[in-house]
Amino acid sequence: MMAEHLSQSELDYPFKLLEYFNGFRVSKVIFSACELGVFDLLLHSQKPLSAAEVALELSTSEDGMERLLDVLVGIEILEVELTEGTAYYSSTDVANLYLAKASPKSLHDMIIYQSQTIYPLWNNMVDAVREGKNQNEKTFGFSSEDIFSAIYRSEEEMLKFMGLMNCTWVIDGHDIVTAFDLSSFKSIVDVGGCSGALARELAKAYPASTVTVLDLPKVVQTAQKHFSQSDDTIQFLEGDFFEEDLPAADLYVLARIIHDWKEEKCVTLLKKIHAACQPGGGVLLVEALLFENHRGPIMAQIFSLNMLVQTEGKELPPSRYTHMLTASGFTDVQLCRTGKSYDAILAFK
Amino acid sequence: MMAEHLSQSELDYPFKLLEYFNGFRVSKVIFSACELGVFDLLLHSQKPLSAAEVALELSTSEDGMERLLDVLVGIEILEVELTEGTAYYSSTDVANLYLAKASPKSLHDMIIYQSQTIYPLWNNMVDAVREGKNQNEKTFGFSSEDIFSAIYRSEEEMLKFMGLMNCTWVIDGHDIVTAFDLSSFKSIVDVGGCSGALARELAKAYPASTVTVLDLPKVVQTAQKHFSQSDDTIQFLEGDFFEEDLPAADLYVLARIIHDWKEEKCVTLLKKIHAACQPGGGVLLVEALLFENHRGPIMAQIFSLNMLVQTEGKELPPSRYTHMLTASGFTDVQLCRTGKSYDAILAFK
Repeated sequence: MMAEHLSQSELDYPFKLLEYFNGFRVSKVIFSACELGVFDLLLHSQKPLSAAEVALELSTSEDGMERLLDVLVGIEILEVELTEGTAYYSSTDVANLYLAKASPKSLHDMIIYQSQTIYPLWNNMVDAVREGKNQNEKTFGFSSEDIFSAIYRSEEEMLKFMGLMNCTWVIDGHDIVTAFDLSSFKSIVDVGGCSGALARELAKAYPASTVTVLDLPKVVQTAQKHFSQSDDTIQFLEGDFFEEDLPAADLYVLARIIHDWKEEKCVTLLKKIHAACQPGGGVLLVEALLFENHRGPIMAQIFSLNMLVQTEGKELPPSRYTHMLTASGFTDVQLCRTGKSYDAILAFK
Repeated sequence: MMAEHLSQSELDYPFKLLEYFNGFRVSKVIFSACELGVFDLLLHSQKPLSAAEVALELSTSEDGMERLLDVLVGIEILEVELTEGTAYYSSTDVANLYLAKASPKSLHDMIIYQSQTIYPLWNNMVDAVREGKNQNEKTFGFSSEDIFSAIYRSEEEMLKFMGLMNCTWVIDGHDIVTAFDLSSFKSIVDVGGCSGALARELAKAYPASTVTVLDLPKVVQTAQKHFSQSDDTIQFLEGDFFEEDLPAADLYVLARIIHDWKEEKCVTLLKKIHAACQPGGGVLLVEALLFENHRGPIMAQIFSLNMLVQTEGKELPPSRYTHMLTASGFTDVQLCRTGKSYDAILAFK
């Protein structure tokens, strides 16, 4: 989706290259507007608003707000009309659906995390590539042996990270849980299930199955406090899946778990899952799968660099997951690419 | 060029929006590869190189380098071939022309400035919009009344900034100097002409004219030390164009000068230029011109936000420049949009 052929015409003038150089500024325009509440204000406004009106409501400078709104018009995220020389801005369906905080498909929390945590981390990418390790210490001034002690270093940071995870499954969850027919698995445990967003999609798609989220006690408590829904049918279980016994189940889901750790640690975890798994049961890995030929997908390639700058892990091509699953005792490995950000791999005991 | 219509299909899945969110990561991939010397190494290599070979040459981790190279393949800036399971990377014409440091059209210095100065500044965009002022102090920890004391706060920073300016005119200069036929102007002064790159394009296009760069003494000295060329026909003149008298000339060029300052200060400067200008002479303004209707061009809109976060100025639509020029005594204002990053406005005494 992102890659367009860098044609010979770039040799006359580097339009596409300059667009790539400007990428960080376009990201920050959207992120900043989201952080300032622009999309919420425009969603709830009954009429288009001038920059002066938006600035007054959101306690910003008028001049700065006008420039921000104009870029959002330029990338077609907002619309503008001129009346007697004054520009009036209004939202678009896309902004209302994904950028306003109140929308059920809001990516607000993903944006906050990207803007406030990922953007500064990537400012140290040169060092990450040089050293081959994450830049949490250099970027945020804390050192930690355990990456999740870093990611969960404060309640605020934990909540932001959980918001990011939650957003992902709000837009990608349905495709993931329907990539395979999982209806034969009557008990499902989402290992490291975080806010429960993917578990909710599982429960919706397979109402006859019981779905349990297993995660660290503080994560479960935060999930129940901030992400629970009135019609929740999912259950939560507190535990450390590396340190403690796993509950018996028919299916274990590991969504964006394997990519956090070194292969050896992952195989140990998969063997433990294999041992706990009911006969005929299985495991569902959810990751952004690289192509074997190194040519893409661009999103998975970018995610893999992100894992470098933030974790111990990386994104992998299917062959590596098959290798780990087989080494852990699983068989009949099946792959489904969704064409979106995340893909699914199913294997059986 | 950047704006693509955000169609209804985004409502099904936000591919384009996620691409915008990832913009900062794509920028930093190219910037980091440039900073690490990847494009120079591949340009000079006689054969495609593995990630291990690149890492060894550039003293980086192999794992980090492989992930970086793979993203560059994903956005088609590098090419990859697999031989017996090992990926070998090679450069493209576009990377050789614009990203390798030794190329006459290299954007290397633009990238360094964007990566090391602009990227961190934009991390404070929310505050810039709130306060309506630049974020030099918050980002880099120095305070300054005068923006160029900030931009030129060290010899290293001055050299980086001059590198940025130089790059711009290497790719945009020819279009700018040929936007109008300037051959009737026998003496040309490039006011705030920095490294001299635009002056060189003027001298090339109008060999019968004398071209002089006027800039601060430390800028002129740095220009002569780092940016002079063996076949230079341009002259340099040391001076502060706000504080000191201007030399008489037929044409004054103000390239990316007006956009740095408040309108009142600009009119004072333009009046001073009008007074020094020979009868029949003129002034050429070079800026990224906004549309009057607030709808673009996206590059000028982004630049205007950049001026907010770094300077006292902003980008403007043609009507504002016409207003300032007329208020300063100039007449017959003519406009030429190049379709690239910068445009030209010519006016006569």
